[in-house]
Amino acid sequence: MSKEITSRAKDYSQWYNDLIIKGELADYSAVRGCMVIKPYGYALWENMRDVLDRRFKETGHQNAYFPLFVPKSLFEAEEKNAEGFAKECAVVTHYRLKSDPNNKGKLIVDPDAKLEEELVVRPTSEAIIWNTYKGWIQSYRDLPILVNQWANVVRWEMRTRLFLRTAEFLWQEGHTAHATKEEALEETTKMLDVYAQFAEEYMAMPVIRGVKSANERFAGAEDTYCIEALMQDGKALQAGTSHFLGQNFAKAFDVKFADRDNKLDYVWATSWGVSTRLIGALVMAHSDDSGLILPPKIAPLQVVIVPIYKGEDSKAVINEKAESIMKDLRAKGVSVKYDHDDSSRPGWKFAQYELQGVPVRLALGLRDIENNQAEVARRDTKEKNTVTLDGISDYITNLLDEIQTAIFNKAKAFRDENIREADTWEDFERILETNGGFISAHWDGTPETEELIKTKTKATIRCIPLNNKQEAGKCILTGNPSKERVLFAKAY
Amino acid sequence: MSKEITSRAKDYSQWYNDLIIKGELADYSAVRGCMVIKPYGYALWENMRDVLDRRFKETGHQNAYFPLFVPKSLFEAEEKNAEGFAKECAVVTHYRLKSDPNNKGKLIVDPDAKLEEELVVRPTSEAIIWNTYKGWIQSYRDLPILVNQWANVVRWEMRTRLFLRTAEFLWQEGHTAHATKEEALEETTKMLDVYAQFAEEYMAMPVIRGVKSANERFAGAEDTYCIEALMQDGKALQAGTSHFLGQNFAKAFDVKFADRDNKLDYVWATSWGVSTRLIGALVMAHSDDSGLILPPKIAPLQVVIVPIYKGEDSKAVINEKAESIMKDLRAKGVSVKYDHDDSSRPGWKFAQYELQGVPVRLALGLRDIENNQAEVARRDTKEKNTVTLDGISDYITNLLDEIQTAIFNKAKAFRDENIREADTWEDFERILETNGGFISAHWDGTPETEELIKTKTKATIRCIPLNNKQEAGKCILTGNPSKERVLFAKAY
Repeated sequence: MSKEITSRAKDYSQWYNDLIIKGELADYSAVRGCMVIKPYGYALWENMRDVLDRRFKETGHQNAYFPLFVPKSLFEAEEKNAEGFAKECAVVTHYRLKSDPNNKGKLIVDPDAKLEEELVVRPTSEAIIWNTYKGWIQSYRDLPILVNQWANVVRWEMRTRLFLRTAEFLWQEGHTAHATKEEALEETTKMLDVYAQFAEEYMAMPVIRGVKSANERFAGAEDTYCIEALMQDGKALQAGTSHFLGQNFAKAFDVKFADRDNKLDYVWATSWGVSTRLIGALVMAHSDDSGLILPPKIAPLQVVIVPIYKGEDSKAVINEKAESIMKDLRAKGVSVKYDHDDSSRPGWKFAQYELQGVPVRLALGLRDIENNQAEVARRDTKEKNTVTLDGISDYITNLLDEIQTAIFNKAKAFRDENIREADTWEDFERILETNGGFISAHWDGTPETEELIKTKTKATIRCIPLNNKQEAGKCILTGNPSKERVLFAKAY
Repeated sequence: MSKEITSRAKDYSQWYNDLIIKGELADYSAVRGCMVIKPYGYALWENMRDVLDRRFKETGHQNAYFPLFVPKSLFEAEEKNAEGFAKECAVVTHYRLKSDPNNKGKLIVDPDAKLEEELVVRPTSEAIIWNTYKGWIQSYRDLPILVNQWANVVRWEMRTRLFLRTAEFLWQEGHTAHATKEEALEETTKMLDVYAQFAEEYMAMPVIRGVKSANERFAGAEDTYCIEALMQDGKALQAGTSHFLGQNFAKAFDVKFADRDNKLDYVWATSWGVSTRLIGALVMAHSDDSGLILPPKIAPLQVVIVPIYKGEDSKAVINEKAESIMKDLRAKGVSVKYDHDDSSRPGWKFAQYELQGVPVRLALGLRDIENNQAEVARRDTKEKNTVTLDGISDYITNLLDEIQTAIFNKAKAFRDENIREADTWEDFERILETNGGFISAHWDGTPETEELIKTKTKATIRCIPLNNKQEAGKCILTGNPSKERVLFAKAY
């Protein structure tokens, strides 16, 4: 397989696909719209999942597991939610195949095994979960319920892109139930903060916290909070959402609780989720034309040591030193691989680890050891340094921290440079065409205007930032009065 | 909800259901045959999963993720596998619902959104994975592939039982590819050993390692290895399987590799899996008429501390001491909860934690603290001891180890007592009716005889134990010559 990567300048979209496929994160599959997550990509997902899972547990949540299938009658119970997802759901109609009488060795759907009620493969689990919560909740003593699920979901997408938009994807979905509106709102923003901190501290990806306009709201939510990130091509990417569901699902599934005064009321709900889409965001936020750049805190492999053998005699000496460095690094909790595979040359290995975004590469030859030093290369800047072997494990752990910070700072500087104000429609269109990025502009607050802007430019309101400055102005398109600027962008 | 548990003697099957439901491990769902795994049950699964996952990685495996759906043409490619699973598979035929024109607010399957090719919801993933491996394998350098997947699978079951037999369940499935038959066989038995060690060391559940007869083999395997456990009602339960798949899937999907001499050959395969069924096995292996008994090494909660308050004044003193004990235990890696919830009485709490199988309970009153002691109760034997507070965290960690061993020894003694030899058909039937358990008996080696025995008694051959003693004898049913005894039992 050619390992050459298309440059961003030449074809951004092909560059992205090259990184995913040649970086061995994922692969296309025989199933339309579904992908195979390869071991390297899955290890990245495991690292992300483990951090999030720990944070969910620290904030009082427990994991559980609910059925993959949603009976049609439950699926349609919350009308807006059903309307939003009906257009793109996989439907199970039969529970058996049988031999094709006309075609030996082939199978056909058995018409005698038709389900009485069709089952929808979950596109999201509010319906099945709120139908379950009905049995769990009688009084305020049963609240709050703070549950999360790690699962696969299916949304039938016509135009798919690896990680960014696939028919099946992996995610977590939190579903909480509360006695009061205030508590549910607090949960919604608390989980948004968990996502934002995760994106910034671990993925090194700066995000803007905001709330969605009505057009972009989750089907069935009262309010959708989101974190929005900026990709290198100037398009935004929604990296996580946290929904305040009000009493919509409680009403659809008749979930009431007796409060302290024994009065019955509907339960308040939130749901929140992030998915394997984050991997797509991570790739596009940091990587370059040589391959992936992964933040050390979630990289599947943080350090690789490559020996530069010179004749058979050098092997034992180099191996011994490498093993010793590896042992020191592992004792410090660093994930490290010693790649002494004889069948490929050091140069090939360098390119491969560069492509796969391993944050630090250490090259070790006989001369190096004689001089008590090694060559250390960092992936993000491609800087190489000759470093003394004394205390090299401390040097590397510090370097990993430095890389994590540098990747974040670089992405943040890029993001900050790419938030522009537009006060006229001409400016708005010009910025969209020349720079992309976020455009901070006034909007008259109507869904119609937002829709019109989308039709004209493909840009949508990514969010109304939290703690947004109030400022009188005129809508960029209609000139109608506006009280605050909102953030527009073209988006994934 | 009444927390009373039906006794095993009165109704074993109802006892089991009571433990699962009232112990809050799982719940029925609105979807026929699917269950909801509740937080306590899921925490147990997480602990089991984490141990297994670590062992898989230690033995060189990596996780990946493959599509939920298998296109029908791939599903039918390996004929025996297809035949085995076609009878019980969920089939997706459409990708959209639409509004029912005759029934406002209701949805119907959109006939315009019929799939060109039906998709089977994976009952197991050999087909989709081997179709993928075809693209990954060219030469011996690409081998072995040692991949595992944690996933949900669906097998349409008509008679379901929580954890033991559900339409959807969670599992892991390892799928490996090798250059030689010997290497694949070695992998098959290596993973069987991983399962056996896990069952015995963590689940405290003794198992017999063996190989299946042809009748009980996995559809598409050359040989199925298994671990078999014995439940308290004398029925056996298959707790894990490891399949040697030969070249069957490689041939079905045309997966060849070039060996060192550049000769093409089909790749050798294994697959191996355990599922949430293990939770059913765990419950039935150890629990008693008061509730669950969970082995400390995988219990979601190992220790609970219950304060016995006597007036408001006692609270501060007891809380302080409890917090201090909790801190010591956590420092030793023990999971511990201090249940100082005022709204329920100590007696109610004792019963609840007993029902949920928390291995150690510590009760702490003012008098206890004055006497520098606490009451420690172990769940398995229900013994209570007054223990000095000096070094109580060491006492408890030792006690947890002791309980782990005691639970295993008890289950092993029961299992060993319930392996009986039968040399006549009358003995065979009598043992099955009066004792149950495993029956070691001669069998003529034919599928027909095994089938006949099953029809007559419901007993099947659970396995031919590994390293089985060779011994001439006569088949228990036909009197035909036999070279070794095999293990029969009725099974879940």
